Amino acid sequence: MRGAVIYGPGDVRVEQRQDPEISKPTDAIIRLAATCVCGSDLWRWRGIDPVTRPVPIGHEYVGTVEEVGAEVRTIKPGEFVVGSFIASDNTCEICEAGYQSRCASMEPIGAGGAQAEYLRVPLADGTLVATSGRPSADLVPSLLAASDVLGTGWFGAVAADVRPGKTVAVVGDGAVGLLAVLAARQLGAGRIIAMSRHEERQKLALDLGATDIVTERGDAAVALVKELTGGYGAHSVIEAVGTQESITQAIRSTRAGGHVGYLGVAHDVQLSGDELFWPEIHLHGGPAPVRRFLPELIRLIEDRVIDPGKVFDLTLPLDQAAEGYRAMDERRAIKTLLLP
Amino acid sequence: MRGAVIYGPGDVRVEQRQDPEISKPTDAIIRLAATCVCGSDLWRWRGIDPVTRPVPIGHEYVGTVEEVGAEVRTIKPGEFVVGSFIASDNTCEICEAGYQSRCASMEPIGAGGAQAEYLRVPLADGTLVATSGRPSADLVPSLLAASDVLGTGWFGAVAADVRPGKTVAVVGDGAVGLLAVLAARQLGAGRIIAMSRHEERQKLALDLGATDIVTERGDAAVALVKELTGGYGAHSVIEAVGTQESITQAIRSTRAGGHVGYLGVAHDVQLSGDELFWPEIHLHGGPAPVRRFLPELIRLIEDRVIDPGKVFDLTLPLDQAAEGYRAMDERRAIKTLLLP
Repeated sequence: MRGAVIYGPGDVRVEQRQDPEISKPTDAIIRLAATCVCGSDLWRWRGIDPVTRPVPIGHEYVGTVEEVGAEVRTIKPGEFVVGSFIASDNTCEICEAGYQSRCASMEPIGAGGAQAEYLRVPLADGTLVATSGRPSADLVPSLLAASDVLGTGWFGAVAADVRPGKTVAVVGDGAVGLLAVLAARQLGAGRIIAMSRHEERQKLALDLGATDIVTERGDAAVALVKELTGGYGAHSVIEAVGTQESITQAIRSTRAGGHVGYLGVAHDVQLSGDELFWPEIHLHGGPAPVRRFLPELIRLIEDRVIDPGKVFDLTLPLDQAAEGYRAMDERRAIKTLLLP
Repeated sequence: MRGAVIYGPGDVRVEQRQDPEISKPTDAIIRLAATCVCGSDLWRWRGIDPVTRPVPIGHEYVGTVEEVGAEVRTIKPGEFVVGSFIASDNTCEICEAGYQSRCASMEPIGAGGAQAEYLRVPLADGTLVATSGRPSADLVPSLLAASDVLGTGWFGAVAADVRPGKTVAVVGDGAVGLLAVLAARQLGAGRIIAMSRHEERQKLALDLGATDIVTERGDAAVALVKELTGGYGAHSVIEAVGTQESITQAIRSTRAGGHVGYLGVAHDVQLSGDELFWPEIHLHGGPAPVRRFLPELIRLIEDRVIDPGKVFDLTLPLDQAAEGYRAMDERRAIKTLLLP
């Protein structure tokens, strides 16, 4: 099959790779209908996370089950499925508490490389959720978004304790930040402040449910959020970048007793005790337990209540994966969908 | 009146101070029945927090209302009252959400120096809670504990999301840690792991509800907590020290999806992004909003359901305050009660 392999910074090649096979009786093999490039893939493209040898890349996927291992009970060949970027048994105590991204038996999907024609999914029964039937083509991008970027934005809103009528601020205007806006809207937020300085993304944020746009950064942004919230700060702030500036901005934009949900994979972040102690906020985040939300997200997509596929503003054949990375790196595209 | 003044490290003197007066119409003047020395007072006694000039000290208090300002409506002279170490209006949005320790109009009680015969309490209606009558003498230590150390331990248990049947670990065997054990017990925890290497404090922890004692520290303590919890870690961990070691130990003892409640005033603590992101835990803490819990805590004490006054293992006349500090600093006493 064809699949993307990252060789080093700025060097992603789609080449012939061995077809994946059932290696454990709990595996499934999926023929991918669509895959995409994640903001977290860009850390390696940009050379911030090291690439020491060529490795398959990609961890977002939807597609049709081709084959299942002998111990797979609920997932069946022919079903159209969505799965999270972390395989989980969905039966351990951690999964039962809703933290499948930290499952006791977790396996990263990325190791198999989902930017490809086929993908081996470990722990298929625990990881995959079937749609109610073969989805119409126009729903595929939204279902693909559920695999990571929507599930992650949704987790951010839940982690930030978004509730009806509350004021929410979102730091970061990438696909995750934008879909955190959608999630906050869906969860009933009264006011949603999107922080973005890019006109196209501001428009999409407003379309997805944002009520206010803040274009400033750092303490100037914090001052504006305070001004919009009677001096108190937002009840809920979703952080979707992963830098010292973004997490600091998120914490300072939150009122005492409020909640920060952080999603950006933290790079070179250091929080001082003072920043943790005196603001008296709730902090929660990390790799999103997307599996927790998949059944609900799939239902909302199938019922056409939400349309998270809007974040894909570039669609390319898989062979042009490198251009998909480049467009996102240069912020010409919000998120690239790849068709195998 | 007589009152304690800290002059520098190891130098607390009880001397003649001016009687406090009503300076704002929302003030009350309290004649103290008892006061005490807080672990946080020791930061200055030990020279870790600087003392640049002699200042009154102490922020824990119970006593009888002597006088109220013209705008005080609910608190009346003659009532026996308990208050938090932070004065709050109890009407702003932050107070209404239960975060009176970050009230928009907050004033620290410590500035007035509660280790004294009399104390001015600002925002009396929002800050003070009256007992149901004049308490019997044996309840006074417990009511005094409610003013800070019990309310703080209780907040730690709530911040760590302690629930019936859950496994809780407590890092720190000072008075706050010990009363966090009591709070966890009262909130229905199934298993309570107290971390202590002092025999006397272990005994008190067991008496207050601990089911297990861990005497190790750092990663050895973490390994033991994991061993006691099927490899997962505790559901809820309460941190009551405030050092890099204690907060790291708390985070690492918590299972994915679990909760850390941190209470120790953070000193020289730095948390890396990795420590925040990958463990996927909830973090919440800071200066405890004791006022939120006071009505319930007073009721539990009056009904003799809880006896938090047990943490006072040294009682001295106010004039011997310095000896009270010294005994706590040398860990000869858990907590010193001072009688004005």
